[in-house]
Amino acid sequence: MDIENYLKEKRALIDSYLESYFNIPNEHSVLHKAMRYSLFAGGKRIRPILALSAYRACGKDPKHIIPYASAMELIHTYSLIHDDLPSMDNDDMRRGKPTSHKVFGEAIAILAGDALLTEAFSMLTNNFPSANEIKPTSLIRMIREISLSSGVHGMVGGQALDISSENSKPDRDTLAFIHFHKTAALIAVSVKMGGILADSDETTLKSLTNYGEKIGLAFQITDDILNVEGKTEELGKAAGSDAKMRKMTYPAFYGIERSRQEANNLVAEAIDALALFSSDADPLREIASYLVQRRV
Amino acid sequence: MDIENYLKEKRALIDSYLESYFNIPNEHSVLHKAMRYSLFAGGKRIRPILALSAYRACGKDPKHIIPYASAMELIHTYSLIHDDLPSMDNDDMRRGKPTSHKVFGEAIAILAGDALLTEAFSMLTNNFPSANEIKPTSLIRMIREISLSSGVHGMVGGQALDISSENSKPDRDTLAFIHFHKTAALIAVSVKMGGILADSDETTLKSLTNYGEKIGLAFQITDDILNVEGKTEELGKAAGSDAKMRKMTYPAFYGIERSRQEANNLVAEAIDALALFSSDADPLREIASYLVQRRV
Repeated sequence: MDIENYLKEKRALIDSYLESYFNIPNEHSVLHKAMRYSLFAGGKRIRPILALSAYRACGKDPKHIIPYASAMELIHTYSLIHDDLPSMDNDDMRRGKPTSHKVFGEAIAILAGDALLTEAFSMLTNNFPSANEIKPTSLIRMIREISLSSGVHGMVGGQALDISSENSKPDRDTLAFIHFHKTAALIAVSVKMGGILADSDETTLKSLTNYGEKIGLAFQITDDILNVEGKTEELGKAAGSDAKMRKMTYPAFYGIERSRQEANNLVAEAIDALALFSSDADPLREIASYLVQRRV
Repeated sequence: MDIENYLKEKRALIDSYLESYFNIPNEHSVLHKAMRYSLFAGGKRIRPILALSAYRACGKDPKHIIPYASAMELIHTYSLIHDDLPSMDNDDMRRGKPTSHKVFGEAIAILAGDALLTEAFSMLTNNFPSANEIKPTSLIRMIREISLSSGVHGMVGGQALDISSENSKPDRDTLAFIHFHKTAALIAVSVKMGGILADSDETTLKSLTNYGEKIGLAFQITDDILNVEGKTEELGKAAGSDAKMRKMTYPAFYGIERSRQEANNLVAEAIDALALFSSDADPLREIASYLVQRRV
């Protein structure tokens, strides 16, 4: 299959839903503008696409779950806005554009993040109860899993340790904790979403989660490598910033070659985790390889 | 009824639930510490108590909904942490203690707010599906209403306009928008929660919402008056800060006497909105009067 084309097509579905959801007549507030600014800054929509692809892997039509899948992009976008703040990673550029606080100031950037996170839960419940493809109990379980993966025991917990570990002597356990929580947790729950909404059994959910965690870690390692090897103009954000901030990263701890090897191993394990699935899971398999080969 | 005693008793129920929920063995992270610091800083738990009292007004036993009611306190606490940040209201003291960013630094304060907001949705879905008192569809509707009242079309929207209107010429419509969104929306949805979880009809929900919006506005006007008339040591936060920041407030626009009159009118209207209810709604009636008579 042509994975680039698949990603492009699925991204268009997500973009079109987000565009119509955030196209509110007579809404001229700076807050809404700031939310749109970051949401439509050229994101690849990887997390929503993973949710759609996992749902398809369970034999279902991805079109049914576009709103739920899209909600993951709101959570991801909020996390980027807050991570870029001066008190956090202090990044001026993201996706080739000035970061939210550079354009709107810190207060509105913080509030735009807060509003996007909150809106994710409005989006998750937007089509209910008319969306009769999805069971109410599945939706509740999904809301629970998403909040657990995004909060103190997930993404926010990882970011907090990332920030407080700057300038610390790197150690294997801290590094593993940061990567798993900061990045892999949200990616894994995006994949799992497809299984939960398809009402899959626990074995299937476990395979999807396992796949999601492995590609999530591989994704973060690749990000760390690109931060070392990439060029600012290609990445659209400051290359070399991790070393400057003395971040605890894979390349800093293991070196580039071993990091690359580890990312490739994780992709192989992720694909193995899908052994139970038919060719319906081919997009998931292709995405795994794609994520570590990307240049941005 | 003895309203002070009622509030004390209900507050103890909420505190005890929150204490057990956030008592996590072997959790020593600074993020978790920061979440606890603000959550257990002496809040009055007004929003959860309103939810319990509205549920009782619908003829039900408040003990069934303690986890759902408590989630409102997480959202309220997150909003205080973020509002106090240097880029927002820049407050050093809250409830007689240094604010979160003074103790933990800005990055952890922002993340503690993020984590508390996220955790609210974990708490709302924590007891499900075992909590068989509550219908799945009611829980989904509640999650939807809470997120709508807390986000860009509710609390966060109000805070954004509050921040961006500092130093502007006060006008009636902007002031009304700020108060309604920043404060009344979250208070109103806390009251409505009791009705939604009790599976009440739309007329009942409308009365509860109406009551909630009126007391929410009265609550904010009282807060504004106390900011002018109160003493820092009694309030536990900086008196006079609104005038210093040139905030758009009721006393600034209408003067103290007319503001007090408006708060009293709103309380009377709130109590009128409960005409349909039996004596089961007496706590709600008493709380309305209590909120504008308070000194802190």
